[in-house]
Amino acid sequence: MARKYNFYAGPSTLPFEVLKELEKDLVDYQGSGLSLVETSHRSKEYDEVHFSVINGIKSLLDVPDDYEVLLLGGGATLQFSMIPQNLLGDKSSVDFVVSGTWAKKALADAKLYAEANVLWDGKDGAYTSLPSPADLKPNAESAYLHITSNETINGVQWKDFPESDIPVVADMSSDILSRPLPVDRFGLIYAGAQKNLAPAGVTMVIIRKDMINRAPEKLGAYLKYKTHADKDSLYNTPPVFPIWAMSKVLKWIEGKGGLEGIQELNSRKASLLYGVIDNTDGFYNCPVDKDVRSHMNVVFTLKNEELQDEFLKGASQRDMLGLKGHRSVGGCRASIYNAMPLEGVQALADYMKEFAKKNG
Amino acid sequence: MARKYNFYAGPSTLPFEVLKELEKDLVDYQGSGLSLVETSHRSKEYDEVHFSVINGIKSLLDVPDDYEVLLLGGGATLQFSMIPQNLLGDKSSVDFVVSGTWAKKALADAKLYAEANVLWDGKDGAYTSLPSPADLKPNAESAYLHITSNETINGVQWKDFPESDIPVVADMSSDILSRPLPVDRFGLIYAGAQKNLAPAGVTMVIIRKDMINRAPEKLGAYLKYKTHADKDSLYNTPPVFPIWAMSKVLKWIEGKGGLEGIQELNSRKASLLYGVIDNTDGFYNCPVDKDVRSHMNVVFTLKNEELQDEFLKGASQRDMLGLKGHRSVGGCRASIYNAMPLEGVQALADYMKEFAKKNG
Repeated sequence: MARKYNFYAGPSTLPFEVLKELEKDLVDYQGSGLSLVETSHRSKEYDEVHFSVINGIKSLLDVPDDYEVLLLGGGATLQFSMIPQNLLGDKSSVDFVVSGTWAKKALADAKLYAEANVLWDGKDGAYTSLPSPADLKPNAESAYLHITSNETINGVQWKDFPESDIPVVADMSSDILSRPLPVDRFGLIYAGAQKNLAPAGVTMVIIRKDMINRAPEKLGAYLKYKTHADKDSLYNTPPVFPIWAMSKVLKWIEGKGGLEGIQELNSRKASLLYGVIDNTDGFYNCPVDKDVRSHMNVVFTLKNEELQDEFLKGASQRDMLGLKGHRSVGGCRASIYNAMPLEGVQALADYMKEFAKKNG
Repeated sequence: MARKYNFYAGPSTLPFEVLKELEKDLVDYQGSGLSLVETSHRSKEYDEVHFSVINGIKSLLDVPDDYEVLLLGGGATLQFSMIPQNLLGDKSSVDFVVSGTWAKKALADAKLYAEANVLWDGKDGAYTSLPSPADLKPNAESAYLHITSNETINGVQWKDFPESDIPVVADMSSDILSRPLPVDRFGLIYAGAQKNLAPAGVTMVIIRKDMINRAPEKLGAYLKYKTHADKDSLYNTPPVFPIWAMSKVLKWIEGKGGLEGIQELNSRKASLLYGVIDNTDGFYNCPVDKDVRSHMNVVFTLKNEELQDEFLKGASQRDMLGLKGHRSVGGCRASIYNAMPLEGVQALADYMKEFAKKNG
């Protein structure tokens, strides 16, 4: 096969080694005579995988003992409404930083259940910047402060996080496990799997234990974090395949030197691309403030917009896929999550230089 | 490999052909240079799979034009609370038939959002029978009547369905696509995938279009059927792997002669086991009323309970797994969903006869 470089924003590339391991065991799981995806979720075989994921996340992120790791379905989109329903408690308001498309989606759902104070909105700058964490003044009466650690469409990423007297809740769908994280500064962290964790279909939630019991009585069983926490995320049948894949992704990250190793690799990859963008005499432009440029989603435009189609076509001919920017903002975007190899980014950087030289 | 016969209640056996096809394409999807599970859900490749599932379900079940087919996450357990939140409208009550463990779970969640009238409860008979559909008298003022078409733990299955002036809502997680279905007699049908559809992680919902708009304004985006219906279940990233697997399962069912063919096969399989149970001089016993015995989950006990462990051990030695009854009811259970081959059921029937002869 000719494996291509997959720069899609999500679902996104998986480590090739992980795909090969899944393939090897897909029909006959470790000689058990069954596939893991058709094995009872109460079986010894699945149990081992399930807890290796929960414990693997705890280990990689150094999750403190007063937090639970949950594995849920429904995507981060379901979390947008589960979070206010579970965490509002006796409060009536929540605080938000609106950093881009995904923060707006989280805000829209929160507004259905609570009064929402927008502490900062990047609208005037077309979502190309972020506030300084120290400048944020959360309301003491709010149930939590919600942030989005990385915006896939706008290409901004928090480099440091707010210190806050009220719990910080973060959507980390697009940069979870891309760097070490001070988990103890958050009340709740959530992440859909399909960027850095696994194929789509499972969502990881890390929640501080004292926040689990804030939910009202009248909330459906699946919608309550307590339901899942009490049963180690085995209250109902979990999404077996993505959890199995995640168990392999976590081991792959360990093999890369854990989150320090991955962060170093991600920095090198991001520097390669931003280096080309900033050093081709304005042929390319990244609109994002330099100090909050995402290491996961590198957004850029071509000064001569008429060349964009040719640029994308040439990339595709060189087996580099998914470089078109999101339809809502246009331009180009290279999503370079954990599993994108350095070679793929190098190939893109080389092509970008070559294309600029030829057309500049 | 020595493939085993998998009688687990769920996740449960998949057609071997489907597993082999998934294996073949897992690393490189049809020569695209990517796995489908790492391909954008906006790609042409995924789009084809996605709509082949929606259209395949419509075709197999002969779904009328005034219904939508949705593919969601979170399992049937999430549906337990989505249903009352979406369908209550201006009503305040719902009607329930309590046929076993799963109906009780659906009822518990409905009670959080509505007044629930229990029209019939199988408790006194230990959930071994069902009401006659004609005897049910739904309340005209209730938003819907909820039934559970097959109870995996108790082994009862509706053979005909209520005709009702209020919409009938049915949890068909454990017998969907096992037989032809009069879809037009239902307002909403839902089914977790992990018995007859696909590996765990996706839930199918068939909803009559006029019921989609009953939801209140203040309901989170993911929790509203309308959100998913408006975007063909692509509002957020769908669980790609189980949907891909489902596309293959649907084709496999077509190859078996569609739902008529599958029903015929399922009848033969069920008759084999109930035949042994009823014709071994009371060595085995099925507590379920003969006219509502499930063709999916055959529950039975051994007259001499002390022999049960030996029976299960012998089955396991013969590569027949998952025959222990649910911990809440004990006894034995053979789950013989669509994908359990006739040969597997024949092997079990033969073993049951042999065991009875030896120990009777």
